Amino acid sequence: MSSGNLLYAQSGGVTAVINATAGAIIEAARKRRQVGTVLAARNGILGALREELYDLKGEDLRQIRALAHTPGGAFGSCRWKLPDIAKDRAPYERLIEVLRAHDIRWFLYNGGGDSADTALKLSRIGAELDYPLVCVAVPKTIDNDLPVTDCSPGFGSAARYTAVSVLEASLDVASMAETSTKVFVYEAMGRHAGWLAASAGLAARRPGDAPHVILLPEVPFDQARFLDRVKATVEKIGWCTVVVSEGVRDADGRFLAEAGKRDAFGHAQLGGAAPTVARLVTDKLGYKHHWAVPDYLQRSARHIASGTDLAHAQAVGKAAVEYALAGQNAVMPAIKRQSAAPYRWEIRPAPLERIANQEKMLPKSFISKDGFGITAAARRYLAPLIQGEAKTPWRDGLPVVAELKLALAARKLPPWQGDGGA
Amino acid sequence: MSSGNLLYAQSGGVTAVINATAGAIIEAARKRRQVGTVLAARNGILGALREELYDLKGEDLRQIRALAHTPGGAFGSCRWKLPDIAKDRAPYERLIEVLRAHDIRWFLYNGGGDSADTALKLSRIGAELDYPLVCVAVPKTIDNDLPVTDCSPGFGSAARYTAVSVLEASLDVASMAETSTKVFVYEAMGRHAGWLAASAGLAARRPGDAPHVILLPEVPFDQARFLDRVKATVEKIGWCTVVVSEGVRDADGRFLAEAGKRDAFGHAQLGGAAPTVARLVTDKLGYKHHWAVPDYLQRSARHIASGTDLAHAQAVGKAAVEYALAGQNAVMPAIKRQSAAPYRWEIRPAPLERIANQEKMLPKSFISKDGFGITAAARRYLAPLIQGEAKTPWRDGLPVVAELKLALAARKLPPWQGDGGA
Repeated sequence: MSSGNLLYAQSGGVTAVINATAGAIIEAARKRRQVGTVLAARNGILGALREELYDLKGEDLRQIRALAHTPGGAFGSCRWKLPDIAKDRAPYERLIEVLRAHDIRWFLYNGGGDSADTALKLSRIGAELDYPLVCVAVPKTIDNDLPVTDCSPGFGSAARYTAVSVLEASLDVASMAETSTKVFVYEAMGRHAGWLAASAGLAARRPGDAPHVILLPEVPFDQARFLDRVKATVEKIGWCTVVVSEGVRDADGRFLAEAGKRDAFGHAQLGGAAPTVARLVTDKLGYKHHWAVPDYLQRSARHIASGTDLAHAQAVGKAAVEYALAGQNAVMPAIKRQSAAPYRWEIRPAPLERIANQEKMLPKSFISKDGFGITAAARRYLAPLIQGEAKTPWRDGLPVVAELKLALAARKLPPWQGDGGA
Repeated sequence: MSSGNLLYAQSGGVTAVINATAGAIIEAARKRRQVGTVLAARNGILGALREELYDLKGEDLRQIRALAHTPGGAFGSCRWKLPDIAKDRAPYERLIEVLRAHDIRWFLYNGGGDSADTALKLSRIGAELDYPLVCVAVPKTIDNDLPVTDCSPGFGSAARYTAVSVLEASLDVASMAETSTKVFVYEAMGRHAGWLAASAGLAARRPGDAPHVILLPEVPFDQARFLDRVKATVEKIGWCTVVVSEGVRDADGRFLAEAGKRDAFGHAQLGGAAPTVARLVTDKLGYKHHWAVPDYLQRSARHIASGTDLAHAQAVGKAAVEYALAGQNAVMPAIKRQSAAPYRWEIRPAPLERIANQEKMLPKSFISKDGFGITAAARRYLAPLIQGEAKTPWRDGLPVVAELKLALAARKLPPWQGDGGA
């Protein structure tokens, strides 16, 4: 006999493999007799507040398994933070009310640092409101900035996308450089930490290989030194690939992409560290440039996901179910690296207190002395994360993705009227 | 006994599969006893003028075959047009001199419309200068704007990249739309013809699927109608994916990306139809946007090349060798579609006079009545071109690419002093 239902929700920016975690959770939970029904909140925590809960009973196992190769967030995600409980208790009480109404005893929240914070708050409120809730955070972020865990599911695939794209495009640039583009600038996501930009460094397998310059948010942008490096590279090999993190700032802490650029309407120029850097190169050095901003493509390219990352994503999902059903409240399954070569890892529970609201920056030891590249230590850390294939089934040249029914469970409560109400 | 040598050169923008054509040509030519040595010009026609010719004798067959999965242009390409022969005869005479010095009897020029023009000019000058040269153009362009041939090698892979990327990123947007980005704008290459932007339409498998709006260079941009469509889409489904061709112009013929936008330094804003359209959406409708400009990524993403495209690329290479050795001067192997479903095709020689300096635009019958999408006829044409897998061998998560020795043949002539000299 079951002892309650399990609720899963997705939070924050999605990744190429967050649905793989979802699929692993749903399949593992279905196998456990303790679990009655598996539910998923629509659009993350908002769905829990609004009592918009998908009842997954009727979903075909084949489609649940197809989540392993479906990018995006199948149940919807959100960027929405719970208020401070000392200031506004109502949303917490509402959440417990919804969980109680649907007999939800386990809540698995799949997200990054903010989501770990939400999970931590909920893990405490259950006891306070006398509701026996076990709350487990499940890691996910392409930014790789979660502490404690060796890496975050979602990062390895985005890192592989970055390294492969930079390698491929650089072969293109190299072959055309004499009469066309000499400097190619690729923009990687990462507002605060340079993990993704750094992973482009894996594309360089031999000295002189692209990328020739990596601009990290951890290193203040020094225009003169940057231009010198680009010029020296072009003079030596005829072309230059630059990878710039969207989060790069100048010595005054201003984002490059916002540094005084206004359009004809007086608006701050939107987005684009890459176009800014590319324009600078042409203005100051006269080289023809091209730039690429793959934006969401880098976090949704499931077709080139890393096998390691996929395995991580599924393993944390499975472990989260185990922890939850074992009553391990306020933990997150963390990836622990046992060895780099051969790459071996395991999953261990980590307390949410150590995870919530912390950011793991690129360590100094990963950044080369000149600030424009990565070290051997960084390569040792990053290399295993982009390895292995993660098969994509294709139909007519397009990826096959899960097709879910997404039937909402019948409401049992009046609509939520507070902040975040529909 | 051989009756001469064969020269291959790459021209114009490279594609994900131009090296596959190169590999097919080299392997086919090596098998023929008529052919002494296979040479490749460094950086296209410039290498022929400068007598910078790679002697491919020493290249390993394994590496030649690895060209089938190597993006970029392995021998270097160029954007450089021969002058009008009536005005400047010197480069033509030099070219014949180089070909004669290296006993080159067959010249295979792999490029788009401009290159077909060059090949045509050379095919005529041989007779005029009493040198027995057979000149064959080999098609290649992601723009798909070559006439006569049903499609151009390189296009199918870029089209697949486009459709897959738009599909994947749209799943991301859909899952985050309630609290984050509502409008996602993807920019496709195509300065004159909207073939690539149109191919994004393949991502939509059911009515309502992304992309919801495709902006083609063939349809003048109508701001009010565009905004209405975006608004209606967001109001209906909560989000909207827009695909914009870099070549879209307003009713006055100005490129969108250049329409009066200047930065703080008074420079025309560089590149970016996508950022322009995205900014417009936020300014006028208030929706949060994101935009992606994959730029060179879309033409170098060999890892997601279409199997059909790869087969085309190799078949035109093989046919080009056959035509050349059979003495068929001034032709290009063209792809002839025999049936769309099941997809069947063959290669036929087409006279260069019918190809040089012509552009094949997207036919009216491929553009939906409202101008924002593609028709069933377009889907029938495009669908087979993105199908089939083109295997990529991986090592450590990165694509394995050809490693050539690229040894230059010994010079026999004084350096070229004219235009295009090194």
